[in-house]
Amino acid sequence: MKRIAILTSGGDAPGMNAAIRAVTRKAIHDGIEVFGVNYGYAGLVAGDIRKLEISDVGDIVQRGGTFLYSARYPEFATVEGQLKGIEQLKKFEIDGLVVIGGDGSYHGALALTKHGFPAIGIPGTIDNDIPGTDFTIGFDTAINTVLESVDRIRDTATSHVRTFIIEVMGRDAGDIALWAGLAGGADDIIIPEKEFDMADVAKRVQDGRDRGKKHCLIILAEGVMKGHDFADKLSEHGDFHARVSVLGHVVRGGSPTARDRVLASKFGWEAVELLKQGKGGLCIGMKDNQVVANDIIDTLENGKHKPDLTLYQINKEISF
Amino acid sequence: MKRIAILTSGGDAPGMNAAIRAVTRKAIHDGIEVFGVNYGYAGLVAGDIRKLEISDVGDIVQRGGTFLYSARYPEFATVEGQLKGIEQLKKFEIDGLVVIGGDGSYHGALALTKHGFPAIGIPGTIDNDIPGTDFTIGFDTAINTVLESVDRIRDTATSHVRTFIIEVMGRDAGDIALWAGLAGGADDIIIPEKEFDMADVAKRVQDGRDRGKKHCLIILAEGVMKGHDFADKLSEHGDFHARVSVLGHVVRGGSPTARDRVLASKFGWEAVELLKQGKGGLCIGMKDNQVVANDIIDTLENGKHKPDLTLYQINKEISF
Amino acid sequence: MKRIAILTSGGDAPGMNAAIRAVTRKAIHDGIEVFGVNYGYAGLVAGDIRKLEISDVGDIVQRGGTFLYSARYPEFATVEGQLKGIEQLKKFEIDGLVVIGGDGSYHGALALTKHGFPAIGIPGTIDNDIPGTDFTIGFDTAINTVLESVDRIRDTATSHVRTFIIEVMGRDAGDIALWAGLAGGADDIIIPEKEFDMADVAKRVQDGRDRGKKHCLIILAEGVMKGHDFADKLSEHGDFHARVSVLGHVVRGGSPTARDRVLASKFGWEAVELLKQGKGGLCIGMKDNQVVANDIIDTLENGKHKPDLTLYQINKEISF
Amino acid sequence: MKRIAILTSGGDAPGMNAAIRAVTRKAIHDGIEVFGVNYGYAGLVAGDIRKLEISDVGDIVQRGGTFLYSARYPEFATVEGQLKGIEQLKKFEIDGLVVIGGDGSYHGALALTKHGFPAIGIPGTIDNDIPGTDFTIGFDTAINTVLESVDRIRDTATSHVRTFIIEVMGRDAGDIALWAGLAGGADDIIIPEKEFDMADVAKRVQDGRDRGKKHCLIILAEGVMKGHDFADKLSEHGDFHARVSVLGHVVRGGSPTARDRVLASKFGWEAVELLKQGKGGLCIGMKDNQVVANDIIDTLENGKHKPDLTLYQINKEISF
Repeated sequence: MKRIAILTSGGDAPGMNAAIRAVTRKAIHDGIEVFGVNYGYAGLVAGDIRKLEISDVGDIVQRGGTFLYSARYPEFATVEGQLKGIEQLKKFEIDGLVVIGGDGSYHGALALTKHGFPAIGIPGTIDNDIPGTDFTIGFDTAINTVLESVDRIRDTATSHVRTFIIEVMGRDAGDIALWAGLAGGADDIIIPEKEFDMADVAKRVQDGRDRGKKHCLIILAEGVMKGHDFADKLSEHGDFHARVSVLGHVVRGGSPTARDRVLASKFGWEAVELLKQGKGGLCIGMKDNQVVANDIIDTLENGKHKPDLTLYQINKEISF
Repeated sequence: MKRIAILTSGGDAPGMNAAIRAVTRKAIHDGIEVFGVNYGYAGLVAGDIRKLEISDVGDIVQRGGTFLYSARYPEFATVEGQLKGIEQLKKFEIDGLVVIGGDGSYHGALALTKHGFPAIGIPGTIDNDIPGTDFTIGFDTAINTVLESVDRIRDTATSHVRTFIIEVMGRDAGDIALWAGLAGGADDIIIPEKEFDMADVAKRVQDGRDRGKKHCLIILAEGVMKGHDFADKLSEHGDFHARVSVLGHVVRGGSPTARDRVLASKFGWEAVELLKQGKGGLCIGMKDNQVVANDIIDTLENGKHKPDLTLYQINKEISF
Repeated sequence: MKRIAILTSGGDAPGMNAAIRAVTRKAIHDGIEVFGVNYGYAGLVAGDIRKLEISDVGDIVQRGGTFLYSARYPEFATVEGQLKGIEQLKKFEIDGLVVIGGDGSYHGALALTKHGFPAIGIPGTIDNDIPGTDFTIGFDTAINTVLESVDRIRDTATSHVRTFIIEVMGRDAGDIALWAGLAGGADDIIIPEKEFDMADVAKRVQDGRDRGKKHCLIILAEGVMKGHDFADKLSEHGDFHARVSVLGHVVRGGSPTARDRVLASKFGWEAVELLKQGKGGLCIGMKDNQVVANDIIDTLENGKHKPDLTLYQINKEISF
Repeated sequence: MKRIAILTSGGDAPGMNAAIRAVTRKAIHDGIEVFGVNYGYAGLVAGDIRKLEISDVGDIVQRGGTFLYSARYPEFATVEGQLKGIEQLKKFEIDGLVVIGGDGSYHGALALTKHGFPAIGIPGTIDNDIPGTDFTIGFDTAINTVLESVDRIRDTATSHVRTFIIEVMGRDAGDIALWAGLAGGADDIIIPEKEFDMADVAKRVQDGRDRGKKHCLIILAEGVMKGHDFADKLSEHGDFHARVSVLGHVVRGGSPTARDRVLASKFGWEAVELLKQGKGGLCIGMKDNQVVANDIIDTLENGKHKPDLTLYQINKEISF
């Protein structure tokens, strides 16, 4: 392995830059040349590729987003697109590729692997919805950003003795809602992985009021339904007049937390180690506090991310 | 003046607690007893009033919201409601009232003043839309909270080379949009106080793209139109696909900035000074960096808040 | 188990309040009465104990410090002190005690256990230096607080092309330095668990300079030596003129991160579960991402906390 | 005026980048070419000068420090140094210079002015100690950064019922201590501009304790004495055992607040306006909420910065 490349794909996540930095520096440390691909798979196919030096990744460990840019590129689902990508990599004499991104990005890495080109996936998405890992890069920052907003909304909810529905990102996964909900002391957390009965939610809200509780916060994962729809349905069960706050793209950016930077550094370092050993077709993860590398085909085909539902149970028993 | 009362009314704003603390402590320092009224005018009429001691306002200078709670109470617009309020105040032998809040809250203070009860208004609202002052309590915190979100969204906008419309609070005033827009390096700022031509906005966005600019952020005051409507209209002028982010109630809470706490402390201190001198019917403000007190009737009837439009002009010339 | 008590002891840590809240709410949920002991073991011996209701722990999940206060109390090392404590607990008909704190606090819990009174320890300290757990409550917040400062200092270091020694807390453990160092992109990390050669440090600084690097940040654990002493010794190896920044007590406070609040909630919930099952003499921890409970005697006598030294190695290979 | 240059000098301050951006963009908007000088006067004399384009100042409005770097350069106090600087400026056909910095930086601008080269000073320093302006760029960010630390330390002080001495930057000026002290609810504020009697300080601390106050925070300006010396002297008046926290360089960096970015944008815009009108030898300031430009010679020779001592008086009356 003399030359590797790196790209970021899918939605940006805080810590992607820290991962790019780790891959670049570790590779240079080990005598491997590194190339950055701009705009994900789109840039790969277009050959928008440049050499990265030590200083190119200086002063980025603390920055949100991805300085290699990202882009959607459905054309990479075609064999034609994939072969063009490999052609570009060969033109630059690149032997291995590190892909940082979510679910969709892994499928690109999987395709390259199937064509015989060693690719390694690093899980980078705020949604934490990737199989094969307990945590993805960006998740810790996202839950802290959501939490800041929850803490702010609590001020207003308390001052006005109000109920708030806070809709948070997460696509089909409830992880962001779960973690930010438990951390934020939410009266209830509504996630796709758990059925809920609106009458129970209403009772929980009413019980709090009856006890003199000043605020009521319900954290709702976007994968369940829209916040405004939820508020409407809730009001069918009583005089709740819940306000709705939708936390959208603000949750995607920002300087990564310590945990996300450390995770990104570990993952980036490991990716280079694996490529050095001639290994490809793997996706890196953190399982039970250990860095692991799983077969990317198996992970994508058989793996399924599951949120930590003990948080759900604990919240039911301590937030009321 | 031996006993004064204090209430917060209207939407909560960061720094209200710092103002309550300043009024309470200054009064006690000067030998005056202080009573806190819960839930604004609603609590006043209901007699939800309690004595405040030094320690009751300890450890609150840093807290968002208002620990005296706030509430809407349209009934206070009636003479009947006002007289009930005065009756309660007399029952507690209270000689003067400090009201912290926005526009609507001032009208209550004005009514009490017209009935011969000395009331002093302190401007507390994140919207900065109160006549008679350059800055209101909560505005500085709100623009910094918006700015954090703008900085976060810039990460994502840059990573994906996208245009974002960021809708911000402010009711009919453009102040939050103006300050956060200039501070955030917004490509354009759309406020109620300035006409705009969507074709010009589109050209500005297109010019940036043509120059290779990676992100485009447009800050939109809610007083102009909804963010999604703006994005729709913008897309009539070209292939812009702008994302929309609506910053709602998250902007109302949070620990107040240094500036808001100092402003609140100055205003609270001044309110007690004025009541001590037997003055009422005034609203306090900060004009040209000096604390002032204006006639509340005159201010409400003839005053008009104007945002600092030099910011608008400067932004046009430096953000592109 | 009908009545339990809770106390915090040793240095305060962000998340202690979240743990107190979890213990209190979980116990009430399960039909157990809860008593809060003020000022740690000192308050225990003095009988400074009060019943906690649901609302007593409302609105504290987000607060730094401990609302039960903490205090040093060396007298609890004596059997006399311990028996007085048990006497007070019996007076309140309390059957079990949860102790949140560090090393020293565990010894108190151990003593009570040896006297036959069921006590459970929850690890709460920013230093992360407790055996039997990978992470302590407060550590995640502390490393993020340190990281904010490191990011700020990087601005100045870069602007002035300077070297900074940043001394951080941690007592005899290098965890804070390790995590904040890797996350902050520190040029070097100096911890008690790893020998270092000042000549190597100097070479690393000089190499960066020779390559045109604008800033150089060295994170130093307080357990190694004072920052100013380190700067003096470094300057014996070349013309480095390093500035020194000592991050002291600022790192102990602040609103806890999402991770610390979740950890605190899990630990608090588990402590009540264990006491309900009649178990005592245990200390709770998080090992390999699972909540565990270890024998407190064995943990204190045979356990030894070890920092994750892979971070040290990774930093050597990616931060230069 | 066809070509102008800009440099930053002295200690870096958050918002300097926003000012550089404003100068650059406003000049380009008005058809003037802009050159950036690296490393302040040192770079000026050395000819370390480069043209700045629109995109060179993109994505910097939110960054702390100065991307043009800063440096001490005592040699610029000599006529020889100054003439070399002017020679370099003429070589690049530059007609006017904008200097962002503190006191010392103004003297360089003054010297150039006296030699007939138009220079404009913009006040940039966290210390707020520049005559001719109520506020300097960086001050607002610095007081908010100090305030965050004060809020954090309050958590620990309250948890342990302790007294803290918090030493803050500010050189010979008490502004940072005053603003952060009032905003932070400090029990006492010690600044160079006001005499103090340690017996009075001790009495204030003791009175708070006697009333049951849990924490005591004293904010000390570095211009008065060292924090540890203060703690020693305080302990001569009673059993206070005050902890000391020294907030050093962490206060200099960080992303600028909204207020600092707006101030920087206004100042930068104005500097170009003035140079366009052929005016030089001026320093820009904000007086009574208006942008002003004063004669730099007169300001430096006769002006004197005075902190807003009403804050001192208010704090005495509301923080106890």
